Amino acid sequence: MADRILRTQFFDGHSSIAKPVSEGTDMFLELDGHGPHYAQLIRALKGAILDGRLATGTRLPPTREFARELELSRTTVLAAYEQLRAEGFIEAHTGSGSYVAPLQIDPPLLPAKPTVEPPSRYAQRARQVRTPGIATKHRGLRYELQYGHSQINPALSGLWGRELARAASYTPPYIADIQGLPALRKQICDYLAHRRGIRASPDQVMVVAGTQQAVALTARVLLDEGDAVVLEEPHYFSLYQALVAHGARICPVRADAEGLVCTELPQVSPRLVCVTPSHQFPSGAVLSLPRRLELLRYAEKHHCWILEDDYDGEFRYDARPLAALRSLDEGDRVIYVGTFSKVLFGTLRLAYVVLPVALVADFINAKYLSDIASPGIEQAALAHFMEDGGFERHLRLARKELQARREALIEGLRQHAGARVEITDHPAGMHVAVWLRGYDHARAEALIELAHGRGLGLYSITPLYLNPPARPGLLLGYCGLPISTLREAMQLFGQCLDDMDARPA
Amino acid sequence: MADRILRTQFFDGHSSIAKPVSEGTDMFLELDGHGPHYAQLIRALKGAILDGRLATGTRLPPTREFARELELSRTTVLAAYEQLRAEGFIEAHTGSGSYVAPLQIDPPLLPAKPTVEPPSRYAQRARQVRTPGIATKHRGLRYELQYGHSQINPALSGLWGRELARAASYTPPYIADIQGLPALRKQICDYLAHRRGIRASPDQVMVVAGTQQAVALTARVLLDEGDAVVLEEPHYFSLYQALVAHGARICPVRADAEGLVCTELPQVSPRLVCVTPSHQFPSGAVLSLPRRLELLRYAEKHHCWILEDDYDGEFRYDARPLAALRSLDEGDRVIYVGTFSKVLFGTLRLAYVVLPVALVADFINAKYLSDIASPGIEQAALAHFMEDGGFERHLRLARKELQARREALIEGLRQHAGARVEITDHPAGMHVAVWLRGYDHARAEALIELAHGRGLGLYSITPLYLNPPARPGLLLGYCGLPISTLREAMQLFGQCLDDMDARPA
Repeated sequence: MADRILRTQFFDGHSSIAKPVSEGTDMFLELDGHGPHYAQLIRALKGAILDGRLATGTRLPPTREFARELELSRTTVLAAYEQLRAEGFIEAHTGSGSYVAPLQIDPPLLPAKPTVEPPSRYAQRARQVRTPGIATKHRGLRYELQYGHSQINPALSGLWGRELARAASYTPPYIADIQGLPALRKQICDYLAHRRGIRASPDQVMVVAGTQQAVALTARVLLDEGDAVVLEEPHYFSLYQALVAHGARICPVRADAEGLVCTELPQVSPRLVCVTPSHQFPSGAVLSLPRRLELLRYAEKHHCWILEDDYDGEFRYDARPLAALRSLDEGDRVIYVGTFSKVLFGTLRLAYVVLPVALVADFINAKYLSDIASPGIEQAALAHFMEDGGFERHLRLARKELQARREALIEGLRQHAGARVEITDHPAGMHVAVWLRGYDHARAEALIELAHGRGLGLYSITPLYLNPPARPGLLLGYCGLPISTLREAMQLFGQCLDDMDARPA
Repeated sequence: MADRILRTQFFDGHSSIAKPVSEGTDMFLELDGHGPHYAQLIRALKGAILDGRLATGTRLPPTREFARELELSRTTVLAAYEQLRAEGFIEAHTGSGSYVAPLQIDPPLLPAKPTVEPPSRYAQRARQVRTPGIATKHRGLRYELQYGHSQINPALSGLWGRELARAASYTPPYIADIQGLPALRKQICDYLAHRRGIRASPDQVMVVAGTQQAVALTARVLLDEGDAVVLEEPHYFSLYQALVAHGARICPVRADAEGLVCTELPQVSPRLVCVTPSHQFPSGAVLSLPRRLELLRYAEKHHCWILEDDYDGEFRYDARPLAALRSLDEGDRVIYVGTFSKVLFGTLRLAYVVLPVALVADFINAKYLSDIASPGIEQAALAHFMEDGGFERHLRLARKELQARREALIEGLRQHAGARVEITDHPAGMHVAVWLRGYDHARAEALIELAHGRGLGLYSITPLYLNPPARPGLLLGYCGLPISTLREAMQLFGQCLDDMDARPA
C-alpha cells in the first residue's frame, strides 16, 4: 500500500535531448511510509529499476531538482543516490549526473507464486507428528492445570536477576567451552553425587539447552533412519515427536504400576531405550529396583543405550529422592538427562547430560554443530547460584511448596471428585495422573470442554499414548497455581463432574 | 580408591543361628570419601549387594550395633537403611531387622569393557570433519588475532547485566513462543528495515541460538542425505562441517573479488546455495549487484533456496551498510541469517532468521524439536535494549571502534609488513584477509609457528578452503584487541617476517 505517491519524469540517458522515459506522462514513484524518507526513496527507486520501469542508462534527475519536485530535502535525495551507487544500482558519470547501471533484469524477479519443492523427509515427518497434542491449548484461563507451567517461588526472579547481573560482569565475551562452563559442570557433579547418587566426572557432563536438546543430540549421535527405539507407553509427547521426526522406528513398551514392563522389551535389539525411572511420565510410577537391574542387563545383552530422563527426580515427598538409574549403571550405557528448567523455570533452557565415556566426543561434535555451546552468562550465573547455596535453598523451598500444593490438590480431588476419579500417582513430581471412572473418551472430551468454558484448564492424558488407554484420564499439573487457587480449581472440577453426572451418558 | 575401609560381619538371614556370611572372616566395606557419611555408606552397601558379596536374604546388623562397630553415628546408619529400603535394596521384616531384598543380580553388571556399536552416520561424518580447523588453537597468547574473539565495548557487560536483571523481573517463567519473543521479533524487523533494507513481518522471523543453529535448522528442514549444496570457496568452516555431518553433497563454487562466481554455479539443481553477500567470508569480497540478480534468477530457475549469512553486514566503514540480498528477493527464496553474537558478544548465542513464507511452519517444527525455544530472559533483555536505543548506541560505538582498529591494523601492516603481504579486503567487517607474497604453505606454517612462540596468534586461511589456495594467506581478526595492542601486534608481525626473510626458502 503506497503511503505517498510522487510524480516525476525521468530521461533517457542515451538521448542527447531531454526525452521523457514514459512517453509524455509522468512516472509514479510510490513511497511505502516505512522508516525515514531516504530509505523509502531508495526502495521506490530500486523497485522501479528492478521491475524495468527505469531501464539501464536512464538518467536520474539532478538531486536539487529532484528534491524540489518530490518535496523532499536535498540531503534525503543525496543520501538515497549515494546508497544506490554504493549498492551498484546507479552509476555516477562525472559532470553529467547519475544513470541506472547496466543490469540484466530480464526475466523479471517477480514470479506469481514460487514453486516449492517438498522439504526434507525430516520436515515431512515433523509435520505429521506436530499435531496440537498436549501443547499450549488453553492460554489465559483462570485455573490452568497444564503440566510444566511452573511458578513456584515468586522471589526467584529477583534472585536470578541479581545472579545474571553479577555473572555478566565477569563472564568472558567469547565461547569458552562447547561442553559447558567447567565451573557449572563441577557444580552439577557435586549435586548429582549428593542428591541423585550419581558419581560422574565433569568430563562426562555436557550442558545443553533443555531436555529437548538432550534428546535431539542423542538421536543425532545414535540413530539412523529406521533404527528402533523403545519408548514407554505412555510417554512424554515431545520425546516421541523428536524421535519420529528423526526417523526412528518407535517400539512402545507398556509401563505399569512398577514402571516399564521389562519382560516385554523387544527380542530384536533396539538402539535406544527411553525411560523415566524416577517418576514415569505421565503415569507417576517409580521403576522398581528389580526392573532397573533387568533393564541394565537387557542393555548390556543387546548392546543398546538407555536414555534416562530424570525430569523431576528431585521432587520426592515421602522420602529422600531415589537414586537415579544411572547410579547403578556399571556398564556405562545410561545417558542421564537432568534439567534446571523444571526446578527453576521453563524459559531458562538449561539442562545437562551425564554421558557414557564412549559417547562424549560424539556428543561434543553434535552440540558444536547444533549451536556451538550454551550461553555463557546464564551458565556462570547458575554455577554461582549453586556454589553459593542459593540453588539448594530454592530446592528446599520448592519441594515444600510443591508437596503442599500436591496435598491440596489430592485433598481437593478427594473432597470434590471423590470416587469418580482414581489417582495412581506416587508422592513425587509436579503433576498427578487421575483416571475418570465410568467415562469413555468422548465423555472425557465433553468434560474438558465444559471445564474450559468455566475457566478451568484440564488436559487429557490420551495424547501421551500411542494407542489410547482403555479408560480416559487427566494430567493435572499443580506447579503453576498457589494452594488457595488449587483448592478453588478442585471445587470447580467437582462442579463440572456434577454437571456431567446430570447429563445422559 | 577407598577413603576408609570398614570391617564388619553380616549374617545369613535364613539361618536360625548367627552364621557369618563370609566364612570366619570379616567383610570389608569401602567408603569412597565423597560427600556425607550416610551417602558413602549407601554406596558401599549397594556395591556389596550388586556385586553379590551381600546375597539376597542376608540380614544387616541392627542399626545401633552397626553404628558402634563402624564408628558412625546411629542417625547415619538409620538414614542409609531408610534410603536403601526406599530404593528396594533391603526389606524390613517387622521385629527382626533388615534383609537384602530378593534381586536377580546374576549375570553381574560389571562388564570388562562395554561393546560399543558404531554411532549414527551423522556422528561418523561429524568425526571426519571435526578436525581442529581454525578453532581455538592458541589460547592465552598476548596478541590473539583469532577471528570472532570479540571485545569491542568494555561498558557493554555492565549495560547488559542491567538489562538482564530488569528482564528477569518481568519475564514469565514459562516458554511463551517457539518462534521467539514477539517483542524481540518486532524490534528485529524494525532494525532490518532500517539498516539492512529488508522488509519482513515478525511472522517470518525466528529467534535462534546463533548462526550455527540457523544452519542446522536449515539443513534439517531442506536437506536429505546426498542433497547437493553450493558453498562458496573459501567458506566459513563450521558451515561446511554442519552440512557435511548432515550428509549434504558439497559443491564448492569459487568466490573472486566480486564474490560468488555465479556463472560457475552447477547446471544440476542444488537444494541450497550458501552465500555471504555483504562481506564474503573469509576473502572480504562484496557480492556485486549484477551477481546478486544472477543468483536470485538462478534460484528461481532451479527451485533452490539461498542461505544468506549476513554475519557482519552491519559493519561497513566506507558507506552505509549495503542492503542485504534478501531485500532484492522478490521470489521469497532467501533464508536470511543475522546474528547478535558478532555485534554484541559471542557467548550470547542469539541470532535470527528471516524465512520465506513457505518455510515458516517447517522451521517452527524443527526449532521446537531441537530445543523448544530460545531463552526468555535474554530475549526480553535484548528487545528492551533495542527498543530503548542502547543497541543503536552500542552499534555506533562499535562501528567507530572497529573502523579505528581496522585502520590501525592496515596501517601497521603497511608499515611493518609492506610489500610482503597483499590485502584483498573491503573496508568492512571484523577481519582482514592477507596473502603472503613469496611464501608457500610450508613456509606460512613456519611463520605461524614462529609468531606463536612469541605470543602472536596468527591463523592460516587454508582450512577455510576445500582445496588449498594457490598461495597461503592469513585471517587477521581485529575485534579482540584494542588499537595500541594491535599496533604492537603488527610490529611483532613485521619482526616475524624479518626473521623469516633471514631463513633460507
